[in-house]
Amino acid sequence: MSSAWLLPEHIADVLPHEARRIEELRRIMLDAARGYGYELVVPPLLEHLESLLSGTGRELDLKTFKLVDQLSGRTLGVRADTTAQVARIDAHLLNRQGLTRLCYCGPVLHTLPSGLHGTREPLQLGAELYGHAGLEADLEVQELLVDCLSRAGLKGLVIDLADARLLRGVLAGTSLTPDAHEALQQALADKDRAAVETLSAALPAATARALLLLCDLYGGAEVLERARAALPAHPLVTAALDDLQWLSLHIAQAYPEVRVGFDLADLPGYAYYSGVRFAVYGPGSIDALARGGRYDDVGAAFGRRREAVGFSLDLKAVVEHVTFDGRRSAISAPWGEDPGLRSAVRRLREQGESVVCVLPGHEHEFQEFDCDRELVAVQGQWVVQSR
Amino acid sequence: MSSAWLLPEHIADVLPHEARRIEELRRIMLDAARGYGYELVVPPLLEHLESLLSGTGRELDLKTFKLVDQLSGRTLGVRADTTAQVARIDAHLLNRQGLTRLCYCGPVLHTLPSGLHGTREPLQLGAELYGHAGLEADLEVQELLVDCLSRAGLKGLVIDLADARLLRGVLAGTSLTPDAHEALQQALADKDRAAVETLSAALPAATARALLLLCDLYGGAEVLERARAALPAHPLVTAALDDLQWLSLHIAQAYPEVRVGFDLADLPGYAYYSGVRFAVYGPGSIDALARGGRYDDVGAAFGRRREAVGFSLDLKAVVEHVTFDGRRSAISAPWGEDPGLRSAVRRLREQGESVVCVLPGHEHEFQEFDCDRELVAVQGQWVVQSR
Repeated sequence: MSSAWLLPEHIADVLPHEARRIEELRRIMLDAARGYGYELVVPPLLEHLESLLSGTGRELDLKTFKLVDQLSGRTLGVRADTTAQVARIDAHLLNRQGLTRLCYCGPVLHTLPSGLHGTREPLQLGAELYGHAGLEADLEVQELLVDCLSRAGLKGLVIDLADARLLRGVLAGTSLTPDAHEALQQALADKDRAAVETLSAALPAATARALLLLCDLYGGAEVLERARAALPAHPLVTAALDDLQWLSLHIAQAYPEVRVGFDLADLPGYAYYSGVRFAVYGPGSIDALARGGRYDDVGAAFGRRREAVGFSLDLKAVVEHVTFDGRRSAISAPWGEDPGLRSAVRRLREQGESVVCVLPGHEHEFQEFDCDRELVAVQGQWVVQSR
Repeated sequence: MSSAWLLPEHIADVLPHEARRIEELRRIMLDAARGYGYELVVPPLLEHLESLLSGTGRELDLKTFKLVDQLSGRTLGVRADTTAQVARIDAHLLNRQGLTRLCYCGPVLHTLPSGLHGTREPLQLGAELYGHAGLEADLEVQELLVDCLSRAGLKGLVIDLADARLLRGVLAGTSLTPDAHEALQQALADKDRAAVETLSAALPAATARALLLLCDLYGGAEVLERARAALPAHPLVTAALDDLQWLSLHIAQAYPEVRVGFDLADLPGYAYYSGVRFAVYGPGSIDALARGGRYDDVGAAFGRRREAVGFSLDLKAVVEHVTFDGRRSAISAPWGEDPGLRSAVRRLREQGESVVCVLPGHEHEFQEFDCDRELVAVQGQWVVQSR
């Protein structure tokens, strides 16, 4: 059993230095969401496989660990994404008529890591707004995301916009299998022009050309003008470009310090998106720190189509970009049975101080907590002194 | 797909009313642990099965969901208990010589529920102190647990003490298989005298008699005297009773409001306990709210035996005993593009207020948040008014 401490690949413990920063991030972001009126929910880790995968496409299926339920004999999945679960809660458990704002934070598991250094256990945090078709909902969710990251101290944020309707407009009148559609989305997201050409070989020449053009439509505000000129004037395309313009102006107004850009081919991931999409990058982050968008159709799998827009991120990825340390100063106290000592310790803890008791025999050990003060007896009184 | 929203048995969503109270409990308890100098760690949900089950016995094995790792072909387990994981972190990742104090909070999964109404997804929170053999460590962990529950507003707490050495002392010189030992522990915990008699049929008569006596050893301070008279004077038994006496006096001194009792046959659960054990009950709670004790041998499975004492509890069970609601008052604000409105909303949120924007068309909907105030324009200024 000498290797009992080895963990599976792409699975890791979170040790104190990282754990306390993740905990601080978690609180900052959940408090920000609460400040916008988002209510916390906690969907389960396990569900029947078919509800976990409702309307979410093949990629999520491959990522999902499967189990057999001893109680029912049915196949269960460990959630690999929380979005569809929260949509289920909105559709069935809450079943409210009006706006519903929900947020969540918990681990998900993936059968395979997203990249060479990716974890198979992201700590997913997200927020979802249901019941509003207008762009005010998209704007609110983007603002909440920017606020979450800003409050965590991240600077130099870049938000890239895209829209799922662009691809649907370009492909209008053609028919692709869901798998081919997913492969095409991925090729576009990777800007893999060769793969895009291969995957569009059977499509009309104008469509194939528009798909290749999409790969070049990234950059600043001028991208929208180029897109209007280059893409087919399908109503979905026009609506998407109008919406992107409105959103980019409003985000820029609300957060002048955030750079707003466009990356119109950036449509990776799960199949449920239906409108505006966005990705937020830190300065120098190659992978998006957070992604989100509109997915009005997810609830339909649960018998209730609802307008929906939201975002999610992995706290374990975001924490690599924060500068705070989360280490807190503490007071070192001797161990003893003196009631005066014990009540002094208790009072300090009630005041929010960390008091680390030095148990007998451990007086000369290194302290992990930053004990910059100590509790000492001075003329029969227990007082806190600097060290 | 009409039943896509049905969850597996004993698996449930946590909806806003409960989720916000659990979140508050979580913060209260993790802050209390930090106040004692316990550092947060987050072990993974998935591990190789043999490390998850190191030194923990058959019961945990039966409770653990198994999976196959696509990357390695090896069998993984989803953690059903966090204790052995944290011991692994202490033994190998931190590998400190002196005292180490760790705490954790995260979900675990069970293949079968603990009872008729039990969940298969407890939210386990716990704390562990490594590296000290003396009773000061047991006392500290019990104090932390009482503090966690008291800060959450629980009153009328009862702490019941027992000791794993009593059973070992009583059984000294006999040999039971690990399975028979586990069955006997469970029968004792259930005070199932018939089962205890059956399971001790092959044991010496004096041993069998002492086991039956154990079932009656519960109650107040007089239990220790009865135990000294009734149980064999094996050194393990004597040491256990001395330690229980010391601890009960110290706990009673520190927390006069907590009733300290004994239940010397109450030794259920995982096989790793080696010394004093304790269970905390609320007023009228039939099941223990939290359990803990000393388990000096868990680290041995990871190649490093370390003195260890800790506790764990299920936040989903504890939350049923708290009286706070966690609902927070909020400010309702209209949606609009007026920069004055938008900056007023932002400023209020930065001050820690919850501001719920009423998106266009949703003016007459019920608000889940308790909006006792609203943001209104008075003579060109945005001000907060009572409703």
